[in-house]
Amino acid sequence: MRIALLGGTGDIGEGLALRWAHDTDHEVVIGSRDPERARAAAARYEAELAERGRDRDVAGFANEMAADRGDVVVLAVPAQYVADTVASVADRLDGDDVLVSPAVSMRRTDAGFRYDPPDVGSTTLEAAQAAPDAVPVVGAFHNLAAGRLANLDAPLGVDVLVVGDDADATATVRRLTEEIDGLRALDAGGLDAAGEVESVTPLLVTLAVNNEGLHDLGVRFE
Amino acid sequence: MRIALLGGTGDIGEGLALRWAHDTDHEVVIGSRDPERARAAAARYEAELAERGRDRDVAGFANEMAADRGDVVVLAVPAQYVADTVASVADRLDGDDVLVSPAVSMRRTDAGFRYDPPDVGSTTLEAAQAAPDAVPVVGAFHNLAAGRLANLDAPLGVDVLVVGDDADATATVRRLTEEIDGLRALDAGGLDAAGEVESVTPLLVTLAVNNEGLHDLGVRFE
Repeated sequence: MRIALLGGTGDIGEGLALRWAHDTDHEVVIGSRDPERARAAAARYEAELAERGRDRDVAGFANEMAADRGDVVVLAVPAQYVADTVASVADRLDGDDVLVSPAVSMRRTDAGFRYDPPDVGSTTLEAAQAAPDAVPVVGAFHNLAAGRLANLDAPLGVDVLVVGDDADATATVRRLTEEIDGLRALDAGGLDAAGEVESVTPLLVTLAVNNEGLHDLGVRFE
Repeated sequence: MRIALLGGTGDIGEGLALRWAHDTDHEVVIGSRDPERARAAAARYEAELAERGRDRDVAGFANEMAADRGDVVVLAVPAQYVADTVASVADRLDGDDVLVSPAVSMRRTDAGFRYDPPDVGSTTLEAAQAAPDAVPVVGAFHNLAAGRLANLDAPLGVDVLVVGDDADATATVRRLTEEIDGLRALDAGGLDAAGEVESVTPLLVTLAVNNEGLHDLGVRFE
């Protein structure tokens, strides 16, 4: 399977790229608005993987080209760019692709981080509304700490909540999730449950700020 | 310390009563709108504790009397009764008491459970608005599965997110939380963070419904 990470040059995209390239044999493709940046990031990831004895090819492209190549296309961009990013690659997607939305909209306040969803209720729903009707959208990876994910020495041992209205698409994303060592995928319901899932993320940040010894938090349901 | 559980005859109140009476030496008082029901529940809890070799006195009273006696007063009533319950005991509380709100407002849909907060943003904030200004309100215990809490044979090993604007009151609730075996208390910020904390609860219910082998879920941040 070919996984394209749009905005794969930073933050959550880097972590997912490294983990999938390290832990699985799926092809990983990095997208960026600037193809040069995508190629540079891909080369960095290849070098890091080679250091660990994983000889992987990671390619970098403009987002449109990356989306065109991906079977699973992850919108690894900040929440405010999700709708525009979907629009920019919409004609490269069809019903055989799966579009994955991990972004969360938060605002910082004096007292911590608050969930700050768009009017439609969640960024995942916003991505679904921006996508062509035929393209299934799945929400996942919202609650992963980017730094921990990108550090291949850091054990994960956390849960990924997957939401979506298309059973095949959510099954694909759950399977890809569990192929990363230390991630357990849980079915958190349909797209309309994305708000509850996304709102865990500001909680994770607030908990890490307020409680000594906690950082790069994930969540585990048990 | 004396802990009063208003609505302590059922659901989360039973679990907190049993756990505090079993694991600590704090005095536990059960409140109900009907004092007879409170006394009957208190007798049941005493009997269960005695079976386990814990010889504890648990008293039952009308909510007003229970609130009067409690240093820490837990609003263990369904979310829709929280504001009325606070109003009914308001003249029994003062600035030395701590009022604790564990209730969560949810609605059931075809696709699972959704968070359905009151207009002020959370049930915890609603409790705070209903309480006299001098009385500190703390949100806690929202994300505990009542059945698991009330089963003294069930290990917990989960986190309790504590929110509040009064540092002494939240410290008291965090301390009381950690005196229950298997609960870790985390500082989740001020009262305005209660929405993110409460919204984890419908997620727990949905996850238990959708994922085989998961039930009576709690949450752990790690």
